[in-house]
Amino acid sequence: MATNRGPEIRKDAVHNRWVIFSPARARRPSDFKSKSDPNQKSTIQTECPFCAGHEHECAPEIFRVPPDSTSDWNIRVIENLYPALSRDLESTSVECGGDSAAAAVAVAGLGFHDVVIESPEHPVHLIDLSEDQIGEVLLAYKKRIEQLRAFDSIKYVQVFKNHGASAGASMSHSHSQIMALPIVPPTASARIQSMKEFFGQTGKCGLCQVRVDDFIINESSHFISIVPFAATYPFEIWIIPRDHSSHFHELDSEKAFDVGGLLKLMLMKMSLQLNDPPYNLMIHTAPLQIDSTHLPFTHWFIQIVPQLSVVGGFELGTGCYINPVFPEDAAKVLREVSVP
Amino acid sequence: MATNRGPEIRKDAVHNRWVIFSPARARRPSDFKSKSDPNQKSTIQTECPFCAGHEHECAPEIFRVPPDSTSDWNIRVIENLYPALSRDLESTSVECGGDSAAAAVAVAGLGFHDVVIESPEHPVHLIDLSEDQIGEVLLAYKKRIEQLRAFDSIKYVQVFKNHGASAGASMSHSHSQIMALPIVPPTASARIQSMKEFFGQTGKCGLCQVRVDDFIINESSHFISIVPFAATYPFEIWIIPRDHSSHFHELDSEKAFDVGGLLKLMLMKMSLQLNDPPYNLMIHTAPLQIDSTHLPFTHWFIQIVPQLSVVGGFELGTGCYINPVFPEDAAKVLREVSVP
Ligand SMILES: Nc1ncnc2c1ncn2[C@@H]1O[C@H](COP(=O)(O)OP(=O)(O)O[C@H]2O[C@H](CO)[C@@H](O)[C@H](O)[C@H]2O)[C@@H](O)[C@H]1O
Ligand SMILES: Nc1ncnc2c1ncn2[C@@H]1O[C@H](COP(=O)(O)OP(=O)(O)O[C@H]2O[C@H](CO)[C@@H](O)[C@H](O)[C@H]2O)[C@@H](O)[C@H]1O
Repeated sequence: MATNRGPEIRKDAVHNRWVIFSPARARRPSDFKSKSDPNQKSTIQTECPFCAGHEHECAPEIFRVPPDSTSDWNIRVIENLYPALSRDLESTSVECGGDSAAAAVAVAGLGFHDVVIESPEHPVHLIDLSEDQIGEVLLAYKKRIEQLRAFDSIKYVQVFKNHGASAGASMSHSHSQIMALPIVPPTASARIQSMKEFFGQTGKCGLCQVRVDDFIINESSHFISIVPFAATYPFEIWIIPRDHSSHFHELDSEKAFDVGGLLKLMLMKMSLQLNDPPYNLMIHTAPLQIDSTHLPFTHWFIQIVPQLSVVGGFELGTGCYINPVFPEDAAKVLREVSVP
Repeated sequence: MATNRGPEIRKDAVHNRWVIFSPARARRPSDFKSKSDPNQKSTIQTECPFCAGHEHECAPEIFRVPPDSTSDWNIRVIENLYPALSRDLESTSVECGGDSAAAAVAVAGLGFHDVVIESPEHPVHLIDLSEDQIGEVLLAYKKRIEQLRAFDSIKYVQVFKNHGASAGASMSHSHSQIMALPIVPPTASARIQSMKEFFGQTGKCGLCQVRVDDFIINESSHFISIVPFAATYPFEIWIIPRDHSSHFHELDSEKAFDVGGLLKLMLMKMSLQLNDPPYNLMIHTAPLQIDSTHLPFTHWFIQIVPQLSVVGGFELGTGCYINPVFPEDAAKVLREVSVP
């Protein structure tokens, strides 16, 4: 089997969506496996390549925070050792499988796939960092996006975090990932299209208008956190800048520390109320080379999804989700959690 | 909290997608819980409401197969006791939350949500039924869809099956579900749009053209099974009628028994090769009230997705999937599995 082939991005012409094929991903390790094997000692901490002192077991470093630190780093941004996309942007091979070109569109899977190690210490998770330290993690994302913007072929950058095995994490050491894509992904295009329609009807940005008391959890100087009106998942949380801003990488230090505080508060409330659930965190931003006429209705935000249930055939089949918790009820519960 | 409220379907105006809110769903039981509690005896079989002799513990029956059977039924189609949608189609209340109509669209959650019990015996799964018995299950879906078509308000019927806890199943007794929706769901609209474009470019139906040797697993008189060119999930399988057909409910008995055989073969190959994985099965068909000009490029098919990995933040964020297995490799493996 062609497991040494480079990654390829193919278009599913039936559903009009892109899929990344990456055999290298099948080889990545998981330190959660020990959980299902009670005979294997939990030697995670000394074996983890993301821990301080194990830097040589990782793929190359891109930068660290603080930048001039030798051993005492707080954050490291490194290459992913099992990347879904190939950094070899020089490669121009665009392959095409099948007979009929229209039914079988494939492009080489070029892009960047990085890992952000959020702490040098194994037991310290994002929630355990201080407000300012969480702000520093967000500023590390921003710095990396500023570098990735320099490549013309990169159209969109997805920042995401998997916390806990049932949220997809294969590594338990606190980390997030940055993927720079040669296409604008379907969720981002759908969002632009939808926000454009709303702007056409109302002359306003949909996310500037989102502030409705029933749905608010908490507010900080520059951000609000809500459970959205049509939350896809129970207790899903969005953190949205109050002032209109299309791109996450416009975030300045003051706002980074401010949103760091609100993000920490949301993680603490979720942990207290929902019993420390696995979760995913995604930053939704505008495409890098966005048409300037789209700026008035694109507005970045952070989405946090606690993993409380398993998706079934209805959701896979229809793309519609069933949520047993009304968002106004979830918002009320989260608003009222008292954090010690 | 408003847990006694009826279901509501809301539109996420940011992503332009519908979410069904249904507090009743939060109360449904799960007989998989015992797995995580080793102290609880496995008394599933005698407690299961889907077993023969426990019919009175179920929501009302819609019909059974054979229709005149008293106790010796093979298949029962019943109402879901914890429905995601309300059958009360008389209700005309269309609610609207929030201040701004365009940002907060909600409609009453009206529709039908049924369960198909595929066997009277607890240990017998779909894979254990004969080819003809699987055909009978498919004909039961067809019969129920024929009934649901009579309602003008029903726009789409999704048939799906969850097998195993990590495929979302809450009940271990072999069953599937039929959900009749008052909207055409996003996956179906995207499919029509995409197939229409292909038809516009080539004058052909994309699924009539899908027969490429590298991707074929097996064939029967009237159907082929393939791993699609841009499979979203590793070892995903599609079963497609050879002759053009828009709606699943056009299936006649001869074809039902033929596809029953091919479906059984696929379940056996998946079980042998992938170690009896949890899986989801979905029937993708055309909307009920389809415009007749759309008939030439809509083509129903069955999708089977073994649950081999967990979705993470990248997929949730972008709507793009990462598949570590090239479809031609998966097809070759499945083609070559020898079934005893
Ligand atoms: N020594 C080393 N140096 C550098 N990098 C190393 C490394 N050892 C491991 N890695 C990388 O570290 C990353 C850890 O990421 P996560 O734990 O968030 O989940 P992962 O990407 O494995 O998959 C989850 O997230 C993806 C994307 O959402 C889903 O496709 C998938 O199904 C889900 O399990 C992996 O991508 C791995 O390749
Ligand atoms: N006595 C009884 N009479 C009649 N019906 C009864 C009953 N007891 C239970 N039921 C119903 O039987 C169904 C069993 O369905 P499944 O096991 O396929 O998964 P479920 O629908 O629970 O959720 C999975 O599938 C849905 C849809 O894909 C996902 O939303 C969800 O997250 C996932 O866990 C449930 O819908 C339940 O309401």
